[in-house]
Amino acid sequence: MNVVEFTPDREQYAYTFGGVEPVMRIEPGSVLRLWSEDAFNHALKSIHDLSSEKVDLRFVNPQTGPFHVEGAEPGDTLAIHIVDLTPARTWGASATIPFFGGLTGTDRTVNLQEALPDTTWIYEVDLDAGMVGFEARFGDFAVELPLAPMLGTVGVAPPGGEVRSSLVPERFGGNMDSPEVRAGTTIFLGVNQEGALFSLGDGHYRQGEGEACGTAVEGAMNSTIIVELIKGNAPAWPRLENDDYWMAVGSSRPMEDSWRIAQVEMVRWYQELFDLHQMDAYQLLSQTTEAPIANVVDANYSVVVKTQKSLMPRVEAFQGMHAELSNRAGQLK
Amino acid sequence: MNVVEFTPDREQYAYTFGGVEPVMRIEPGSVLRLWSEDAFNHALKSIHDLSSEKVDLRFVNPQTGPFHVEGAEPGDTLAIHIVDLTPARTWGASATIPFFGGLTGTDRTVNLQEALPDTTWIYEVDLDAGMVGFEARFGDFAVELPLAPMLGTVGVAPPGGEVRSSLVPERFGGNMDSPEVRAGTTIFLGVNQEGALFSLGDGHYRQGEGEACGTAVEGAMNSTIIVELIKGNAPAWPRLENDDYWMAVGSSRPMEDSWRIAQVEMVRWYQELFDLHQMDAYQLLSQTTEAPIANVVDANYSVVVKTQKSLMPRVEAFQGMHAELSNRAGQLK
Amino acid sequence: MNVVEFTPDREQYAYTFGGVEPVMRIEPGSVLRLWSEDAFNHALKSIHDLSSEKVDLRFVNPQTGPFHVEGAEPGDTLAIHIVDLTPARTWGASATIPFFGGLTGTDRTVNLQEALPDTTWIYEVDLDAGMVGFEARFGDFAVELPLAPMLGTVGVAPPGGEVRSSLVPERFGGNMDSPEVRAGTTIFLGVNQEGALFSLGDGHYRQGEGEACGTAVEGAMNSTIIVELIKGNAPAWPRLENDDYWMAVGSSRPMEDSWRIAQVEMVRWYQELFDLHQMDAYQLLSQTTEAPIANVVDANYSVVVKTQKSLMPRVEAFQGMHAELSNRAGQLK
Amino acid sequence: MNVVEFTPDREQYAYTFGGVEPVMRIEPGSVLRLWSEDAFNHALKSIHDLSSEKVDLRFVNPQTGPFHVEGAEPGDTLAIHIVDLTPARTWGASATIPFFGGLTGTDRTVNLQEALPDTTWIYEVDLDAGMVGFEARFGDFAVELPLAPMLGTVGVAPPGGEVRSSLVPERFGGNMDSPEVRAGTTIFLGVNQEGALFSLGDGHYRQGEGEACGTAVEGAMNSTIIVELIKGNAPAWPRLENDDYWMAVGSSRPMEDSWRIAQVEMVRWYQELFDLHQMDAYQLLSQTTEAPIANVVDANYSVVVKTQKSLMPRVEAFQGMHAELSNRAGQLK
Repeated sequence: MNVVEFTPDREQYAYTFGGVEPVMRIEPGSVLRLWSEDAFNHALKSIHDLSSEKVDLRFVNPQTGPFHVEGAEPGDTLAIHIVDLTPARTWGASATIPFFGGLTGTDRTVNLQEALPDTTWIYEVDLDAGMVGFEARFGDFAVELPLAPMLGTVGVAPPGGEVRSSLVPERFGGNMDSPEVRAGTTIFLGVNQEGALFSLGDGHYRQGEGEACGTAVEGAMNSTIIVELIKGNAPAWPRLENDDYWMAVGSSRPMEDSWRIAQVEMVRWYQELFDLHQMDAYQLLSQTTEAPIANVVDANYSVVVKTQKSLMPRVEAFQGMHAELSNRAGQLK
Repeated sequence: MNVVEFTPDREQYAYTFGGVEPVMRIEPGSVLRLWSEDAFNHALKSIHDLSSEKVDLRFVNPQTGPFHVEGAEPGDTLAIHIVDLTPARTWGASATIPFFGGLTGTDRTVNLQEALPDTTWIYEVDLDAGMVGFEARFGDFAVELPLAPMLGTVGVAPPGGEVRSSLVPERFGGNMDSPEVRAGTTIFLGVNQEGALFSLGDGHYRQGEGEACGTAVEGAMNSTIIVELIKGNAPAWPRLENDDYWMAVGSSRPMEDSWRIAQVEMVRWYQELFDLHQMDAYQLLSQTTEAPIANVVDANYSVVVKTQKSLMPRVEAFQGMHAELSNRAGQLK
Repeated sequence: MNVVEFTPDREQYAYTFGGVEPVMRIEPGSVLRLWSEDAFNHALKSIHDLSSEKVDLRFVNPQTGPFHVEGAEPGDTLAIHIVDLTPARTWGASATIPFFGGLTGTDRTVNLQEALPDTTWIYEVDLDAGMVGFEARFGDFAVELPLAPMLGTVGVAPPGGEVRSSLVPERFGGNMDSPEVRAGTTIFLGVNQEGALFSLGDGHYRQGEGEACGTAVEGAMNSTIIVELIKGNAPAWPRLENDDYWMAVGSSRPMEDSWRIAQVEMVRWYQELFDLHQMDAYQLLSQTTEAPIANVVDANYSVVVKTQKSLMPRVEAFQGMHAELSNRAGQLK
Repeated sequence: MNVVEFTPDREQYAYTFGGVEPVMRIEPGSVLRLWSEDAFNHALKSIHDLSSEKVDLRFVNPQTGPFHVEGAEPGDTLAIHIVDLTPARTWGASATIPFFGGLTGTDRTVNLQEALPDTTWIYEVDLDAGMVGFEARFGDFAVELPLAPMLGTVGVAPPGGEVRSSLVPERFGGNMDSPEVRAGTTIFLGVNQEGALFSLGDGHYRQGEGEACGTAVEGAMNSTIIVELIKGNAPAWPRLENDDYWMAVGSSRPMEDSWRIAQVEMVRWYQELFDLHQMDAYQLLSQTTEAPIANVVDANYSVVVKTQKSLMPRVEAFQGMHAELSNRAGQLK
């Protein structure tokens, strides 16, 4: 397999989906070993670094990419299989940025109350033990939590000539902030522009569903992925697959709309996979879906709707692409 | 243990939380073996029974109860431990009621489009195998799914003299439609009126998260529960506990508000359990919560926020009530 | 005309729609001269009275009523014409109740921020000049504003045996908090229980659209109304009429759903009034409606959709009931 | 005054805010006489033209512009005074585009129901009489309505390098679809990119508040505007002023967030105008705002919050810019 290693220089970071020249052209089937900076752009290194003083909100969620995939055209499907995610630093950071997060007023759900205290937490990483350590900032409590690396952001250039901030989750993927985007998952994204122009970043060493305070355990990440191209067949919204689940991600506001989008995307997928009438797919999924929230803090809220493959007859989605990429991933290890 | 068996007559069904005389007074610590009718009030018995013709929407979600718990006063906490849920019929029913459900216009998200086809599905139950069978109505597809019995509805009388339909999930519990309300779970509800006046019903043989089409595999249910009373300590919103998780359920609209409610309830709970500052609880939960949607179809939408006990130091909630009730439940088997 | 005067004793105040015995039975066609207490239940009499200390939230929005209207049956339409609203005190009060209002976290849109300052404003009323006076609490600014008396709350008993707090706006009317509910307006409400059981209260000497801080210039009110009964013809949601406008009020969450409800109610009304196809009514109203927000602070948010009669051919709604009642009102003056 | 006339060629139309080269550089103080194409890009010319067949959704809401304003820098304020709007055709068109509009499922509030009938209405314009004529498509009803020309879309390039579709209303203005954007109104927009890069389009011969069906009486428009630049002082969200009102426009989802944004923007403006404490501005506005909905159909929903100048002491906003531009506008006539 063609293996490409890439660590961007600081001036190569992208802060948008679309509107940026590709850093590289790659062939479908390529293995990429990528380094990405953390969401704070390395501005928070200790608990004394406050987000209001150190973080430049114009330069957050720096993306590694975009990559131009040879042959990718609008209407095609990009398949990105995550082989491995490994923290690239020995610590991660989290913060309650003023007027950002799920349990505070924001620039949208705006209120007249005082901001919550601008606070930074640093989590030490123990790669061997596979743990990150939480330490209370307002007391003595400490606890070790399992590492659970994921990517907050994977996306392609949007349609219609739009350019969107890397803080936005949408049809094109983006800042979905779902823990499902981890090693072993294949992400299927519809291509909107020639070359697809995908990028990734916003590595999380660990994140709860909802990403309540607005930031995960943010950290630089080493990502190994395999990129493939399927001609045509573009899903309307991001679809994910791992060995156990089929999934769709909806991102909008209010959050019931995010759910509606993901649930309908699964109805459409089940109609294809099992040749079902819309009403039967609607019914069957009503009794079988799981529906974890991904984020309630970004420019759009993201909801995952997923179903266990083991409940259903064995079928192949996207011509067996996930199994094929998992197989190739196994050969890399 | 004091064991009470109760199967209501049809005229004893309750259709509201509050506003109904108790069917019985029980002592704290009682074991109740209860039968409850299905949500359609037994109106759908074959695929030829259409909800628009057979279901009387004034008489759905019939409740078994309410029960007056001796000594329960406003501000107390009712603990209901579910020992066992067993389907009371050999089949369950589901339906797409016109203008009800998550992927159709409703009386709230009202639109001018035609209703979806009024369709009924019947699921055969195989208790020995532990399965329910889905059969397509618009094709030949069929699949056996695992039984996963749960109660859509558990609640107490509301505060402020309100009387609410048994279709409503709120602070007082009610029609939360969460798959977490199953055998092995203890539900903690704040008491609002003398005697608590709790009831249950809306048995589901199986339900996906979201309850997308508006109805689960609805069926009459035999429930075995233990009811206990904790003086004081009423949670603001329903809290749940099983051997593995602490959970809170928020119910409101839009769905981000349901999530906010449940997430804050977990912040408050973590502050109590671990003597944490609000900001540390907010941060720690941001990295550890799971957030499955319960329903997106009822009068309020319900979201569960839950955290794994195994991630945290060992502590007891509600003075160890869940462990105590689980222990007693074991003696019943 | 049969004229009834009624000032409730304190123990006669109602705090719910439904669930309360009628204070009186009245004949259709009766004129009622009613006194109602202010929304704070007279707890705020100076700027030194803080809502957190003085207001008992179990006893707010006291209602005058309910009145049993002879002959009113479910499916009928109650018509309430407001002849006159006159402030019953020489001052009104407003307050920012902690965690209540539109620009603060609430018990639903819950956050972890500190509450806004608990502040009370007193407005002096000059009935002769028709003005109320605003005085800043944190500076010297003062301004006289025109009196614009309205009723925050007019409603009937809900359907389905529900009992709802007088803080709730819904299908049955209730706490809609719309400035349109003023002298000269006829309110049409569908009857849900025998006798209709309507009540009113929550007098506002003046209120902006949205009722942003959660409370208007609240004051005791003398209301003169005429009550009539139309057999059958119950609207799904409250409809209003004055000399210039037809209106509908939707109350739900999120606010787009409130709007959808009111807009569809106007589509249905236009179909009846002008014998229009649904699509033509949809189109015509798209170009002619006004859509002022009523409240964004109550248990449901309320939106008014209204259209100018002068734009349309002359027709009669509800058999000319509004014109008839306006005529009778003229005779009272 | 420097007067610029400009009618774009078809290939000069812009379909985004940002991401497009300016068609022209203009000096602050310039008068612009601009022609803009209708929102359907002239695709619907008769009732037999169906939107699903004729309208290319990639090329709707064509903008005239963008114009580079000399000297405009981020943080500055662009003031656009609308002198005159005159229909540029003798007919306007409206349509119910499948799965677009307020009373249908959309790509966000997605459902499984059938689309509403794809229908086109043509309104004949009588400029002399100042009327547009509605004719029913499913019956004989017809009615003449007053012309009320407005611009659906006025905006500048967004911040952060984003490029947004001309269908989007946001901080930068854009597709707000408010009837307040008419002759006599001055629009104040914060500048985000050098030159401001403003454009306008989406002329409406008439539109109801909410724009319920998704489209107004759409038509090509001749617009006369005066463009001025204020150094610094950029408002966070669009502010509007006419002779009678100060206004702010919020655009987000859900609609309560749009309202919150506009209401807070007015609080901030009142603090500036009258040197008020935040709490006093909150209170005073609670009793005086009007809150008409602008649109409930676009990528964001827009709400206007406005207050009558006549209620308040006389002050000047933006150094009297609106009065100054109104005065200059008078000299043009």
